[in-house]
Amino acid sequence: MNITQPTLILDKQKCLRNIQRMSDKAKKHNVKLRPHFKTHQSKEIGNWVKSFGINSITVSSVSMAEYFADAGWKNITIAFPFNILEIEKANNLAKKIKLNLLIENFKTFKFLNKNLKSNIGFFIKIDTGYHRSGFSWDDSEKINEILEAAKNSSKLNFIGFLTHSGQTYHAKSKKEILQIHFDSIKKMNSLKEKYIQDFANIEISIGDTPSCSIAEDFKGVDEIRPGNFILYDLMQYKLGSCSIQDIAVSLACPVVSIHKERDEIIVYGGGVQLSKEFLTDKNGNKNFGYIINFQENNFSLPVKNTFVKSLSQEHGIIKTNSDFISKTKIGDVIGILPVHACMTVSAMKNYLTFDGEVLETC
Amino acid sequence: MNITQPTLILDKQKCLRNIQRMSDKAKKHNVKLRPHFKTHQSKEIGNWVKSFGINSITVSSVSMAEYFADAGWKNITIAFPFNILEIEKANNLAKKIKLNLLIENFKTFKFLNKNLKSNIGFFIKIDTGYHRSGFSWDDSEKINEILEAAKNSSKLNFIGFLTHSGQTYHAKSKKEILQIHFDSIKKMNSLKEKYIQDFANIEISIGDTPSCSIAEDFKGVDEIRPGNFILYDLMQYKLGSCSIQDIAVSLACPVVSIHKERDEIIVYGGGVQLSKEFLTDKNGNKNFGYIINFQENNFSLPVKNTFVKSLSQEHGIIKTNSDFISKTKIGDVIGILPVHACMTVSAMKNYLTFDGEVLETC
Repeated sequence: MNITQPTLILDKQKCLRNIQRMSDKAKKHNVKLRPHFKTHQSKEIGNWVKSFGINSITVSSVSMAEYFADAGWKNITIAFPFNILEIEKANNLAKKIKLNLLIENFKTFKFLNKNLKSNIGFFIKIDTGYHRSGFSWDDSEKINEILEAAKNSSKLNFIGFLTHSGQTYHAKSKKEILQIHFDSIKKMNSLKEKYIQDFANIEISIGDTPSCSIAEDFKGVDEIRPGNFILYDLMQYKLGSCSIQDIAVSLACPVVSIHKERDEIIVYGGGVQLSKEFLTDKNGNKNFGYIINFQENNFSLPVKNTFVKSLSQEHGIIKTNSDFISKTKIGDVIGILPVHACMTVSAMKNYLTFDGEVLETC
Repeated sequence: MNITQPTLILDKQKCLRNIQRMSDKAKKHNVKLRPHFKTHQSKEIGNWVKSFGINSITVSSVSMAEYFADAGWKNITIAFPFNILEIEKANNLAKKIKLNLLIENFKTFKFLNKNLKSNIGFFIKIDTGYHRSGFSWDDSEKINEILEAAKNSSKLNFIGFLTHSGQTYHAKSKKEILQIHFDSIKKMNSLKEKYIQDFANIEISIGDTPSCSIAEDFKGVDEIRPGNFILYDLMQYKLGSCSIQDIAVSLACPVVSIHKERDEIIVYGGGVQLSKEFLTDKNGNKNFGYIINFQENNFSLPVKNTFVKSLSQEHGIIKTNSDFISKTKIGDVIGILPVHACMTVSAMKNYLTFDGEVLETC
């Protein structure tokens, strides 16, 4: 690798293993895997996913749906409350592919019913406890209002209920993640039972990577939409979703300075590359990433007692020890395992694989 | 404005006023203004700066230096510890422009002395208390080592000492910012006095926007390198560097959902657009941005008791009150004043002015 500036290195083999594992799990539990592509945002990685027989995906914006439709995907759910200002783009997409939108208010439903030019599928977004968006799972009045109108709509085809239990990201243990997961699918199943007489093919779609990675019970669930699992990151590692060896991306950074007097290394690679997401340890210290060395076609295990303690726009400040300092030279390239891969990918806009291939994102 | 998705709106008139104010201040105090272009990263905004008679600039990477050299700038300081892996690009730049590099270790000095093909200027990076990078201001041994070698170098021309008092960003009051500023320039002046006999034209360069915005005493300072002052942001507002009306950028975001039951509005516009920088209030609550309305060619004052309480990848969750909720409709476009303009610009990669002009960044 001829690296001279911050470069996001992608381990394709790890990606393939991560996809294989989730694909096997979905088959085992008889749920459809509709992976979220907002994490990797790459046509090429999309093709790797496709090679596992997966043909329907999730994205987080209309623009991302356009990008992946252009790449040949024919069945896309935009898992974001539909933005009515993008109706023209949605109409263009709906002519070409099977498009599913997410609705979480009656005004948007009415707007779509009036302005859509082709048929679309829609999910109702359900809040099972994250309290970011969606109708509360027990808000029958608002759910009924849309479902009654849907019965008379020729354009909007109700597919089912969709939730994202993002509260798992704040869980303190795997046990807590599983509790959130079970509570969430219990609430979703109660909705399925309630409405299945009117909508025989009603689907339940759940999403978060921690639940999908850790849980082994998907009773009543029809579809899972994890996204981060293809790359994973330190946040997922800390939650217990993956092992450290499953993390498939690392930001390669040139060493530009070494401060022995305070056991710190300065690299070219900061907030504009990694994003400023951090983990907090029990003492309240921030950690913006672990450090690895690049081996032939692999990342080493993290260097012990070493982490990114702060980030400026282009600087990364690594706190380490005299042992690692003594092995490190100015001009070396070391790797940072990112805290949040979705944000790092979005900031970097491309990857370099160990084979030297550059993959662009949307 | 025909906005359908998150768009960074730039108020050119505010930029021009902000540049005018800092330019006047530099003239008044007889210091050279070498503005840092890492904040705005735009050739066009660079041209606005040029129209004030400014002809030398600061950037934070070799790539950014290439971009602005291509745009016609002939005098550029790369205020980042030089990355020896980019020597080829530095040699190409040094053929075309007056290039100044930043050195903070002897190994990099020796490397440059051996590998440079043209003359460059260099600053020694001094740590006056931020403890990110640079030699401690009283580390005579390390400073002398480089300066002795510089006397015999035909390639490396010592210009002076450069510092960035980034610790002002953690100050709790204007008074504390001024204390840091005076302490910093006192240390820098002691260096100037110490070495002026050997280097008669020695320069002192200081950088941070809070000090440059607030201080009215620049004794002994030859050059100031603020960058954020052209756009400003909420972080600078909180520090006292600017008024809220000086902030020249706002992220326009479509409203996609309204949750009256918890006084929350959801917009399309999240961490991938704004970055995840936040302010923390005295109760420990995070604030990822204030909300404004777009008026004809202007931003309103921030909506009272309203702020971005959290950001997902594409969602912004705004905490507000029933009054603002009652005035807001799905499909409206509202603005977020960013916490850290440098990060938001870097994430967005372009601006839209009130005149409808799109400005690209590097």
